[in-house]
Amino acid sequence: MVKKDIRVGVIGATGYGGVGLIELLINHPSVSIGALMAKHDINKPISEIYPHLKGFCDLPVLDPADPDCAGVFDLVFFATPDGVGQREARRWLNQGTKVIDYSGDFRFSDKESYASYAARIGKPEDHADPDILPSSTYGLPELHRKEIANSNLVGNPGCFAASCILGLAPVLKLRLIDSDDIIIDAKSGVSGAGKTPKPSFHFPARHEAANAYKVTGHQHVYEIEREFALLTGKDTKITFTPHVVPLTRGIISTIYTNLLPQVGLERLRDAYMSMYGKEPFIRLYSHGETISTTDVRGSNFCNISLNIDPRTEKLIVISVIDNLVKGQAGNALQNMNIMMGIEETAGLMHPGNFP
Amino acid sequence: MVKKDIRVGVIGATGYGGVGLIELLINHPSVSIGALMAKHDINKPISEIYPHLKGFCDLPVLDPADPDCAGVFDLVFFATPDGVGQREARRWLNQGTKVIDYSGDFRFSDKESYASYAARIGKPEDHADPDILPSSTYGLPELHRKEIANSNLVGNPGCFAASCILGLAPVLKLRLIDSDDIIIDAKSGVSGAGKTPKPSFHFPARHEAANAYKVTGHQHVYEIEREFALLTGKDTKITFTPHVVPLTRGIISTIYTNLLPQVGLERLRDAYMSMYGKEPFIRLYSHGETISTTDVRGSNFCNISLNIDPRTEKLIVISVIDNLVKGQAGNALQNMNIMMGIEETAGLMHPGNFP
Amino acid sequence: MVKKDIRVGVIGATGYGGVGLIELLINHPSVSIGALMAKHDINKPISEIYPHLKGFCDLPVLDPADPDCAGVFDLVFFATPDGVGQREARRWLNQGTKVIDYSGDFRFSDKESYASYAARIGKPEDHADPDILPSSTYGLPELHRKEIANSNLVGNPGCFAASCILGLAPVLKLRLIDSDDIIIDAKSGVSGAGKTPKPSFHFPARHEAANAYKVTGHQHVYEIEREFALLTGKDTKITFTPHVVPLTRGIISTIYTNLLPQVGLERLRDAYMSMYGKEPFIRLYSHGETISTTDVRGSNFCNISLNIDPRTEKLIVISVIDNLVKGQAGNALQNMNIMMGIEETAGLMHPGNFP
Amino acid sequence: MVKKDIRVGVIGATGYGGVGLIELLINHPSVSIGALMAKHDINKPISEIYPHLKGFCDLPVLDPADPDCAGVFDLVFFATPDGVGQREARRWLNQGTKVIDYSGDFRFSDKESYASYAARIGKPEDHADPDILPSSTYGLPELHRKEIANSNLVGNPGCFAASCILGLAPVLKLRLIDSDDIIIDAKSGVSGAGKTPKPSFHFPARHEAANAYKVTGHQHVYEIEREFALLTGKDTKITFTPHVVPLTRGIISTIYTNLLPQVGLERLRDAYMSMYGKEPFIRLYSHGETISTTDVRGSNFCNISLNIDPRTEKLIVISVIDNLVKGQAGNALQNMNIMMGIEETAGLMHPGNFP
Repeated sequence: MVKKDIRVGVIGATGYGGVGLIELLINHPSVSIGALMAKHDINKPISEIYPHLKGFCDLPVLDPADPDCAGVFDLVFFATPDGVGQREARRWLNQGTKVIDYSGDFRFSDKESYASYAARIGKPEDHADPDILPSSTYGLPELHRKEIANSNLVGNPGCFAASCILGLAPVLKLRLIDSDDIIIDAKSGVSGAGKTPKPSFHFPARHEAANAYKVTGHQHVYEIEREFALLTGKDTKITFTPHVVPLTRGIISTIYTNLLPQVGLERLRDAYMSMYGKEPFIRLYSHGETISTTDVRGSNFCNISLNIDPRTEKLIVISVIDNLVKGQAGNALQNMNIMMGIEETAGLMHPGNFP
Repeated sequence: MVKKDIRVGVIGATGYGGVGLIELLINHPSVSIGALMAKHDINKPISEIYPHLKGFCDLPVLDPADPDCAGVFDLVFFATPDGVGQREARRWLNQGTKVIDYSGDFRFSDKESYASYAARIGKPEDHADPDILPSSTYGLPELHRKEIANSNLVGNPGCFAASCILGLAPVLKLRLIDSDDIIIDAKSGVSGAGKTPKPSFHFPARHEAANAYKVTGHQHVYEIEREFALLTGKDTKITFTPHVVPLTRGIISTIYTNLLPQVGLERLRDAYMSMYGKEPFIRLYSHGETISTTDVRGSNFCNISLNIDPRTEKLIVISVIDNLVKGQAGNALQNMNIMMGIEETAGLMHPGNFP
Repeated sequence: MVKKDIRVGVIGATGYGGVGLIELLINHPSVSIGALMAKHDINKPISEIYPHLKGFCDLPVLDPADPDCAGVFDLVFFATPDGVGQREARRWLNQGTKVIDYSGDFRFSDKESYASYAARIGKPEDHADPDILPSSTYGLPELHRKEIANSNLVGNPGCFAASCILGLAPVLKLRLIDSDDIIIDAKSGVSGAGKTPKPSFHFPARHEAANAYKVTGHQHVYEIEREFALLTGKDTKITFTPHVVPLTRGIISTIYTNLLPQVGLERLRDAYMSMYGKEPFIRLYSHGETISTTDVRGSNFCNISLNIDPRTEKLIVISVIDNLVKGQAGNALQNMNIMMGIEETAGLMHPGNFP
Repeated sequence: MVKKDIRVGVIGATGYGGVGLIELLINHPSVSIGALMAKHDINKPISEIYPHLKGFCDLPVLDPADPDCAGVFDLVFFATPDGVGQREARRWLNQGTKVIDYSGDFRFSDKESYASYAARIGKPEDHADPDILPSSTYGLPELHRKEIANSNLVGNPGCFAASCILGLAPVLKLRLIDSDDIIIDAKSGVSGAGKTPKPSFHFPARHEAANAYKVTGHQHVYEIEREFALLTGKDTKITFTPHVVPLTRGIISTIYTNLLPQVGLERLRDAYMSMYGKEPFIRLYSHGETISTTDVRGSNFCNISLNIDPRTEKLIVISVIDNLVKGQAGNALQNMNIMMGIEETAGLMHPGNFP
């Protein structure tokens, strides 16, 4: 048995983001879970909340203020909603513990950018720890691997954002499209909304329901536009419409752009291959190949298909991920591997289940 | 009891399009079902195939060639796939029976237009009865009510087409958008693919699957573009991407267009009200109101919401229908009412069920 | 247009039991809705809460204490949870308004029987109006049609109870089985739990979940046993295990009993025909015919199949209903029709939709 | 990297039973896949049929008659329907390759027992290789671990059978119940019916459908009764009713029996602990703890809860498994581990995913 010499803590362990991470950590070859922390269900074994974990992880849920949590962790995950990490991250960083946060708290490296985002989620107050922002890194390994490796504080991307940025990065970087007119129509499964029951996610209400929501006003727009601007070198405004469909897991983002003249499928394919050819978690598909959310369900992959409409010369990129894996816990684990200097794919090389 | 003095036949009675029509005809105040016809399940009572009909409609399925079907019907429905109606409609028309066809066979009034459509569905042969095409009418009542009233041969719209055309007609007619750049991202439930089992609609394969299909190549594009051209007076090419999501019923079409300068929500709302204000089956919603496929499930309604993205000045129209009702049998019944000169809403004024 | 001369009120109009009733009342030929009442969403149009009702019923939700509700109703429905009707029914009865209550408040005609039931639902307090109990009637038309016709206060059966009692009544009445050993394994869709979101009915948690609950302790046991005792003339204890499966609507109850010697399928069929042959909402099926929850979805029917295991001489009766129709609002409307002396099937003769 | 020194072949690799096995083999520490074989899709990479496998297993599907399949495998899996293994197993056994078969072909060790089973599945012909039957072993490790370890030919249990036998074995072995009156009400997800699309598993037809099927006539009855007889030493006839509910994965079996006098929950719990206390894939639950199919989804576990109805003295055992893992591929892999003399849990110790 390999010695599991990296020790991590999980804050917000009882939500979907927490349990997804625990599932991955259980089989990680070199990491052990030091403590599970949350605000509710204190002292309850996690396997009582999530019975499938029984025998794999029976740790109790601890209050983050519990002295048992004060031990030395190499890294803690904030699998928490907006607003938690920004108030507590510094304490961990000060004692030498690296931090990965799931929320928007550390996706922006200056307080002005954060403020636009915060306004969208109805939290217009200032960031609780703005001085820490410049040291934070946006945790999308395919675009920021080196910065992540050198960072102690990583903001894990939003699930929609991960699928959209990965879907379009190569053509933006190589300027093969008109970046002034990008339309993204995204569809997500319900688990993206988390564990808390709400009327519109009640089973009978959702079983036959598909709808758009936050039309023109979703908060992930800001991190997408920021990454697009970094790739193209100029400001970009996108049109982004998220939908909820009755899947448990999965995001499918359909991205419509105007191809620049004389750019064909071959050049497109080259662009994606040059950027993603060695990426362990990206798979490319061509026009005519159907890709589905089931192809990535339960795994850390992002599958991308490239399509050109010969009648309108639109480039239509389709990108699918599992919102809870590449869109959340899996990508966070990938960041952890990079930050800890171990094999980037450790604990992540499984294909998921079908059906 | 009102005398049911209109007598209809249903060809293709055993498919989803047929059963949806039977459900509606059962409670129609002035129509009786004269005969159910299909190629398979001959002589089997329809209520053995669809047990929920037991006691409501126990008619046997007849071969269309059966002498019992030769009786005088006021109207027959071809609830059949492409290629059937074009070979058989004339026989019924010749004996004075009106015809409504569900397929693409009579959605185009000249053989050249039909040929483009036919090529897309992999049936590149010529129309079997091209001389009949000029007398056919496109059966979308909200746009062609008068022609339908005077027609004996109506081509019922495709389900995607109905949702898209209704969604955008007012702004096209009043030229409030740039009609050269229209993107439609449509999501359909599985019943749109009909009753025949296929691998990608097998329950375990579909339960957690969402995917685009026929990217850039769906056949409904042609009738949408034809109707758009009729509204604007100029040729239009649209970008249309259909998706399948794990709903049984429902289509949600999200339509992205560029608003012309100075057109605001109020003017938009006026445009839709002027065209749809008296329509019995259209309900309008404004930016900020969520509309869902469940709002129209089981009913003949098309709900439409109007949204403007203030950052990109895009108009985003969302249109939802039940693909089997307004997208198929309900719209066909509405056409029948118009063609027979009875109350247009007869048999159609129910809200569906929730949840 | 027929004059709608019966005027009803609906208390608890905003729950699933309320909306199901409104859907039926909209198309009832001789009933109009006088007022919708609830505790929450006061003054909101019901069609804002349930958008599919827009244009069909846009009445506002009123506080039951609102003077506008004091008008003369012929009948009020308490589509409310346990405990509401027992405190408020008398007020309506006193002014000559008939009452139908969905909960367990009036399913028992003496306070001792009610107490056993109440203990099971965790409300061990005494009935709030015990003197009214002897005048209440158990509202299962197939067994108590005459009493219902003469009653002003009807307790609508529990959804599980309706399916089980209808499933077994004929063989109990004719004493064709050993009534001392009856096992019922029942499976319900999620809408049976009502509109309020809960963790175990959250879409992601329920999408792939089937489980038993309240094993040996479900409250419907008491009304089932009471009805069984009325049929056989002796006390009976049943074993009843409810399950939740990921359906929106539907109950399938599988009932296992020991047939008395020499009772064959023919005699069984005769027993069911003699009791149900003229029932408008019961359909019988024989061994080998598959019945499914979809056969009754959206309709007021109870389908029953009779099966004998030749190896073990067990009688296996399978009974399916829509829990929200025959198990709730539809059965309540049937009771209303009977109590008001109009055609029992009025407003209920539709087959539902498939798929 | 550990050397993967066990080499296996998979026949029937393209079905759900095959892909489930491939998913497990990919991460098995000491097994490599030598060849994938099937009748259809010859030469197609398995990852084209199941895109989630891309990059993990891209082997082509071979015809079993292909010379490339003639290599030396330590073991082959027949993930095939009834009738295949019995005609082909001998060829593999003769060359020293061990065999595990998923179907009923090797679940019975004499041709008379097999004949009863075969009649039920509509294949009344004789077993193709009856002489081989006495050397076959029933592959339920919890009951037959030693025989499996010494066997070269193992018949993997039916999915329903595995859940039922595991659920009741301890009380049968210790004779704590009346074995003459056992009723099993089982509910399965749709994947149990395999990959081939059929009308009743078409998504729209199944989405809201729950039904019993093969009432009194399911073929798994025989292996259940045989195992029960081995445990009790006397013949037993059970009543078994399978149902299909709209899950993709999962079986929940609810077993009703009569407890012998003076047997309480404590003694029951002892019985289960004495038999299962050291079993790696069985988890026990007591009255009051809810167990669900989601607790075992994607894992090799069987969760069992013990309940006594104090009113009727029935023992109600509830048993849940993933029909594709403990009910099929996972159990087969467990058998392989035992037959090859390696750690029994190798490749199987993961908890699955939630939600």
